[in-house]
Amino acid sequence: MPAEHDIAIFLVGLATLLAVARLLGELSRRLRFPAVAGELAAGVFLGPTVLGRLWPGSVQWLFPKGAPAAMLAGYTLLSAVLLLTLAGLEIDLSVVVRRRREAAVTSFAGVLLPMALGFGLGWVLPDVYLVDPSRRLLFALFVGTALSISAMPVIAKTLLDLGFLRTDLGLLVMAAAMIDDLAGWLLFSLLVGPMHGRSAGFAQLGLRMLAIALFVAVVIGLGRRVLDRVLSALEADRMSAPGRVLSLLFVLAILGAAITQAIGIHAVFGAFIVGVAIGDSPRLRTETRAVVHEFVSNIFAPVFFAAVGLRVDFIASFDLRLVAAVIVVACIAKVAGCTLGARVTGLSWREASSVGFAMNSRGAMEIILALVALESGLIRTPIFVALVVMALFTSLLAGPVMQRLLRMRRTTSLRALAEEGAVLPSLRARTAEQAIRELAHALAAGTPIDGNVLAESVLEDETAIACGLSDGVALPHARIADLPRPMLAFGRAAHGVDVNAPDGEPARLFFLLLIPESRAAEALSIYVVIVQSVATEEQRRLLLEATDRAAILDALGRGETASLPELRYVE
Amino acid sequence: MPAEHDIAIFLVGLATLLAVARLLGELSRRLRFPAVAGELAAGVFLGPTVLGRLWPGSVQWLFPKGAPAAMLAGYTLLSAVLLLTLAGLEIDLSVVVRRRREAAVTSFAGVLLPMALGFGLGWVLPDVYLVDPSRRLLFALFVGTALSISAMPVIAKTLLDLGFLRTDLGLLVMAAAMIDDLAGWLLFSLLVGPMHGRSAGFAQLGLRMLAIALFVAVVIGLGRRVLDRVLSALEADRMSAPGRVLSLLFVLAILGAAITQAIGIHAVFGAFIVGVAIGDSPRLRTETRAVVHEFVSNIFAPVFFAAVGLRVDFIASFDLRLVAAVIVVACIAKVAGCTLGARVTGLSWREASSVGFAMNSRGAMEIILALVALESGLIRTPIFVALVVMALFTSLLAGPVMQRLLRMRRTTSLRALAEEGAVLPSLRARTAEQAIRELAHALAAGTPIDGNVLAESVLEDETAIACGLSDGVALPHARIADLPRPMLAFGRAAHGVDVNAPDGEPARLFFLLLIPESRAAEALSIYVVIVQSVATEEQRRLLLEATDRAAILDALGRGETASLPELRYVE
Repeated sequence: MPAEHDIAIFLVGLATLLAVARLLGELSRRLRFPAVAGELAAGVFLGPTVLGRLWPGSVQWLFPKGAPAAMLAGYTLLSAVLLLTLAGLEIDLSVVVRRRREAAVTSFAGVLLPMALGFGLGWVLPDVYLVDPSRRLLFALFVGTALSISAMPVIAKTLLDLGFLRTDLGLLVMAAAMIDDLAGWLLFSLLVGPMHGRSAGFAQLGLRMLAIALFVAVVIGLGRRVLDRVLSALEADRMSAPGRVLSLLFVLAILGAAITQAIGIHAVFGAFIVGVAIGDSPRLRTETRAVVHEFVSNIFAPVFFAAVGLRVDFIASFDLRLVAAVIVVACIAKVAGCTLGARVTGLSWREASSVGFAMNSRGAMEIILALVALESGLIRTPIFVALVVMALFTSLLAGPVMQRLLRMRRTTSLRALAEEGAVLPSLRARTAEQAIRELAHALAAGTPIDGNVLAESVLEDETAIACGLSDGVALPHARIADLPRPMLAFGRAAHGVDVNAPDGEPARLFFLLLIPESRAAEALSIYVVIVQSVATEEQRRLLLEATDRAAILDALGRGETASLPELRYVE
Repeated sequence: MPAEHDIAIFLVGLATLLAVARLLGELSRRLRFPAVAGELAAGVFLGPTVLGRLWPGSVQWLFPKGAPAAMLAGYTLLSAVLLLTLAGLEIDLSVVVRRRREAAVTSFAGVLLPMALGFGLGWVLPDVYLVDPSRRLLFALFVGTALSISAMPVIAKTLLDLGFLRTDLGLLVMAAAMIDDLAGWLLFSLLVGPMHGRSAGFAQLGLRMLAIALFVAVVIGLGRRVLDRVLSALEADRMSAPGRVLSLLFVLAILGAAITQAIGIHAVFGAFIVGVAIGDSPRLRTETRAVVHEFVSNIFAPVFFAAVGLRVDFIASFDLRLVAAVIVVACIAKVAGCTLGARVTGLSWREASSVGFAMNSRGAMEIILALVALESGLIRTPIFVALVVMALFTSLLAGPVMQRLLRMRRTTSLRALAEEGAVLPSLRARTAEQAIRELAHALAAGTPIDGNVLAESVLEDETAIACGLSDGVALPHARIADLPRPMLAFGRAAHGVDVNAPDGEPARLFFLLLIPESRAAEALSIYVVIVQSVATEEQRRLLLEATDRAAILDALGRGETASLPELRYVE
């Protein structure tokens, strides 16, 4: 056990890092930046960049070398491992398989161009930026790889905020980003060994490639199926808390990390692959994922990113020309590559370019990659700083640009609202209250919102139950304080449900409309569009007779007579 | 960052510890032992006791000194901090205040006697067991303290398993155990400073006592109120995930730990006090507690206890006479003290002695205490081993003995079943399905079971809805695979609910009865007792007219005509 003083210092350092990182992370989110920007800023503030200048002794006191540093390093290592596991969990191989053609084209172009331009940039940068100019080939390959990865979690978040995650466009972007991530990390894993100055002879490299291929094949090919069985046994007991699965996930992630670390690739790669294998199992309950997500993003990740900020003096190592060059090359290469790829698959230029900007986000993944390269002695601090700034910049850029590009997609918005929300072709409900519950649960599924809480919030407003319009339509609606965006669920009850309608007719078409408090002003216009969409006998017949989800969505799209004025793409 | 090889070894060691600890912990639970016994056994197996004998090099390879040891120490330190925070969270000061008289008497006697006998034992033990015979006073005080603490979480678990947690008896035990815990840790914190061989002059000791008193007063007195406000702001937003509260809890626990560590008391004490302050706030949602509990008990705690097992050679340091002496003195002192105390408050001898055996559990808390003492150089490994064995033995003893002692409380068992389950004086339900949902949610509240899942499991059985008996009574019942024990919820619907009863009468008295698959044989006897309890007009009138929960419970107790044959106390 380390000495008493070391323990106290470790605890103080950890508490400080987490507290400041979480505070700045929340602030960052409130300013509509990604949380990682604030978390990183916490480290920049507590480290040599700010505090170290103002009060030089303080940084050495708070984060001394020796035992406290080792304990903190253990913690940040675990954080990186868990972060990558979480990133792996979010990869849904079935989405990739379903969209394989479009996604392959988009991601191929989106990797090739950044790889080429990044390699070029690495090749022409002055010697002063290189640790060892004699290893320029390796360096240039790294810059190419660094520019070609995407940041799946950031992209998913941007799409979710904009209400595109479950649309065709969103699925294409996600599938392409997943391929990018897999390819990028595979490439990177090949570079890490030689980075350590180990002999990069062909035999050596071949052996390492073989080991990686074997690891990936065993984990994804065999391990995935075994895991699916194990999880099916563990998660079948629906009464039990997710404890066993949590332990299993943690053990496997750490083991995967240890194995790749031993092969000579970085630990995070193994954790990522294990995450992919586990996350792919449909047996993994949403609840379990949520618990992991909560812990990683609130306890581990902020400390990791703050620790990144601690590592270098961001002012001293900030080289404006280098930063500008990296950002310009990164953005042009990725946006152009992905846009071209997406255009080839048949999207309009406008949609294709929104795909390009979405995939341009680098976020946390780039930061982890840059850190590993810095630690491996492959890059110097100015390149590290440039990559970190580029990662943040591209992540910030995606949202606003996509908003602007997609603002014109107005005419499909009722359809999109339902597509993004929930469509239930046959409700089981026998009462209005039950129908509201059913729709609320469907809306909440797949979001962090609790279905019960949502239903209760709607039902607290008594007028929600008395929601019957005429002609068998019911339109319960409610304002909900902390909803991320307007949400719509549509459901049909062929048997008819008594909703106390003015014409006494039982309702067979249900729309549940939820509006965030902050956007209450939009409620009426959406309400009107819904009413118009079921105004005629013909429209209602189409909706009632549609045979599946797709047909219902088409009917909603066709039935829509007015456009929703800037419904979702303007904040 | 530590060297690559160190990282890999740290990861392998951590994964191995967690995996083996969780496996043996599950096995232990299946054998009806506490999980901690298995987790500890994992360390005993992986450490010098077993693996070190069989294959001497393996332990040094898996758990080498240097950087990997420091990283692992950081992890186990955090685990201990979080374990104590969780223990603090479970302390409900309001229960202590409500039962203050009985609890104070019971716990005072339950601390005084072990303290006195433990001190005596420490005073007479041969010099060979002492690190430094010249500090025998301190050693004897420590043995007294070690024998007087209780293990709240183990006690709560035992009471829950037996179905007594929410009964009068259970609340008394919990309140007394909480006082014990607080007192024990306060006493211990006073001993830790002098343990480190620091001058134990009166001025020094006085200063430390003052610092502890100040810390406790500020955190519990002031901090508790501030925290309640902060939590009320953070948890009010019911849509949000518990992320912010998790971060806050973690930061404060670590800060509290750092402060007490700096004062010269052990870090775990500060974490414990912070846990008490936060856990006391009614604003802390069950959901947030559950997430913390999941993570601590599945990711952190097993590694901690396994690491305890790693520390010493349990065979070499096992001294049968010492272990026997510690166990005998510990059990006699605690059981006698608590029984006497509880008897004075008015319980029968049988009930009082069941309180005594409940409070005799030492469990995890004793192990943490022993570890701190070992690390501080106050005790030698034979004493450490004796305390650990005593902790496990007393925890194992409590359940079976209480079962036997309380087996005779048969005649109140329908009342107890309802008391332990849920009583809803006025249901809001308008349909049988809604009533079942409402009752299922009430049953699930405060347990790890999800109310929705429970309701769905009941409703899957269609006969559950057609649950009407005659005379306005409905008795839906279901067998549930993984229920810990039979559960009963009682609810009244003054307005009457149509349940498709044979006599067509709407139901006003609802009993929801859930039976574990494994105990299906008991279902009928409980069913019969319930039917008998509402057989007469008079019984039903009493139930319908009872004005509150207590009156309903009395009516259920009175109405019961048959005893439930060995309903809950026999496995």
